[in-house]
Amino acid sequence: MSSIKLTILGCHSATPRVNAFPTAQYLEINNSHFLIDCGEGTQRQMRKYKVGFTKIDHIFISHLHGDHFYGLVGLLSTYGILSRDKELHIYGPKGIKDVTLLQLKISQSHAKYKMIFHELSSKKSELIFEDDKVSVSTIPLHHRVYTNGYLFVEKEKPRKLNMLNISGYPEIGRADYLNIKAGKDVVLSSGEIVQNSELTTAPAKPLSFAFCSDTSYKPDIIPIIKNVDLLYHEATFLEDREDLAIKTKHTTAKQAAKIAKDSVVKQLVIGHYSGRYKDLSLFKKEAQEIFENTELAEPGKVFSV
Amino acid sequence: MSSIKLTILGCHSATPRVNAFPTAQYLEINNSHFLIDCGEGTQRQMRKYKVGFTKIDHIFISHLHGDHFYGLVGLLSTYGILSRDKELHIYGPKGIKDVTLLQLKISQSHAKYKMIFHELSSKKSELIFEDDKVSVSTIPLHHRVYTNGYLFVEKEKPRKLNMLNISGYPEIGRADYLNIKAGKDVVLSSGEIVQNSELTTAPAKPLSFAFCSDTSYKPDIIPIIKNVDLLYHEATFLEDREDLAIKTKHTTAKQAAKIAKDSVVKQLVIGHYSGRYKDLSLFKKEAQEIFENTELAEPGKVFSV
Repeated sequence: MSSIKLTILGCHSATPRVNAFPTAQYLEINNSHFLIDCGEGTQRQMRKYKVGFTKIDHIFISHLHGDHFYGLVGLLSTYGILSRDKELHIYGPKGIKDVTLLQLKISQSHAKYKMIFHELSSKKSELIFEDDKVSVSTIPLHHRVYTNGYLFVEKEKPRKLNMLNISGYPEIGRADYLNIKAGKDVVLSSGEIVQNSELTTAPAKPLSFAFCSDTSYKPDIIPIIKNVDLLYHEATFLEDREDLAIKTKHTTAKQAAKIAKDSVVKQLVIGHYSGRYKDLSLFKKEAQEIFENTELAEPGKVFSV
Repeated sequence: MSSIKLTILGCHSATPRVNAFPTAQYLEINNSHFLIDCGEGTQRQMRKYKVGFTKIDHIFISHLHGDHFYGLVGLLSTYGILSRDKELHIYGPKGIKDVTLLQLKISQSHAKYKMIFHELSSKKSELIFEDDKVSVSTIPLHHRVYTNGYLFVEKEKPRKLNMLNISGYPEIGRADYLNIKAGKDVVLSSGEIVQNSELTTAPAKPLSFAFCSDTSYKPDIIPIIKNVDLLYHEATFLEDREDLAIKTKHTTAKQAAKIAKDSVVKQLVIGHYSGRYKDLSLFKKEAQEIFENTELAEPGKVFSV
């Protein structure tokens, strides 16, 4: 069943606060399971929100600021303690492998499972993962360090059989279904051609999710994330401190909403709030003036498509 | 004022569980403030239990297993964000400097403050810190990796002036007080010697705290921790799984209590419970059969002397 379920594990910026959790998200898309970013304490948040540790085979790290990856090594150690034996793929900026392996080595965390690091350095969007259910591409962002967002797209589904119409042709049997689902016409023994469009209906549109954190306002990502069903975009500041957003290479709520609007996405989720703001509803208010369907990320909140 | 206040920030072993926090303790002794071990999420626990980040100038790491130090780099980064500028001393096994600095470098955490690493490799107890209030020595432990406990001892106080008796000697004035507090006798102009014991009373006995985690049962630490006022000793297993304690180089509750009894300590606190036990009261029960004044470590619990 085609679907997206995004669980926010942490959504605050690095500034230390009580009950602020750094960035981490758990994405279920088309029955695949991904972890995106892994700030300190992510594994605790995963337990709290009942995320199945063993379902995750792919972890995507946007950049190597501590609030996006300091929880990775703890999670990898825990997989060792849990006696994981299946491969784990880790995608992130060049350097992630050395620093992670050094930590595991010094703490003598012996893992039975194989860790496969996919180090990224391209400044262009590239396909980095693909199977029969989902593809994942990078979204090059612009931050103080090399940073990627990630675009998750369901694979195109086969067309659906129109059984009512098919039953009108006794000659068409089960053996033909695979070809019909693949979009082929059927040639009857009489020589008559039955158009595929008569025998099938269009499949559900593949769903897509884009994760964009951390970044300056960067409209050139719009072609990459165009029409996604769900967009997470950082919004560290409000418009009143656009100066700080520019200086620290972050985005304001208004700018995130502008990206969502110009990309014609269905829904926007914002997060990575700076600790200077006590009233987070101001982020929603500011964004909704530009893009109505905006929601605030909160730890434990689930967004479904 | 001579005193000990120990706040448990985390006290569980590494096995992943909901609401289990790895080892970290905050020690206030004789108005000095120390952090001992720093598992993942320690900075969050510090916030939760209102530990003043800026008071800490010395952090002691027992060993480089993840559940005792994976939270260090996050805390050091946070000190950077908080614009700390005073020196921070970090004590721990050889290797702690490289792994920490690599993480900070890769995450481009620019700190204004100076980090001074004191890497330990001796297998004998050594004095590693001393000022006019407290001394700290290592307690060599026996675990799967190089591990030290730490012994914190208040400095000997000066003797207290007995003002009633002093007033009987009009010749003795303020200028003499420092010498009298230091234990010296006073020679009057008549040549008469007034014994110090007549002019002073004994100061409060210096208090002491010993932190012992993680370790096999190791009775040869007893001479080092003899008579301490407060002993934290790990107790990962109950007696029923002494086989596992031996295999993993940990201690049972009964063994921890035996160490406390044989060391003639005033109070024992145990922790680092294995995830296999649901009912932690069994740890207390088992220990109390050997050493009555035993308490269980719990996140947020404070032990005062």
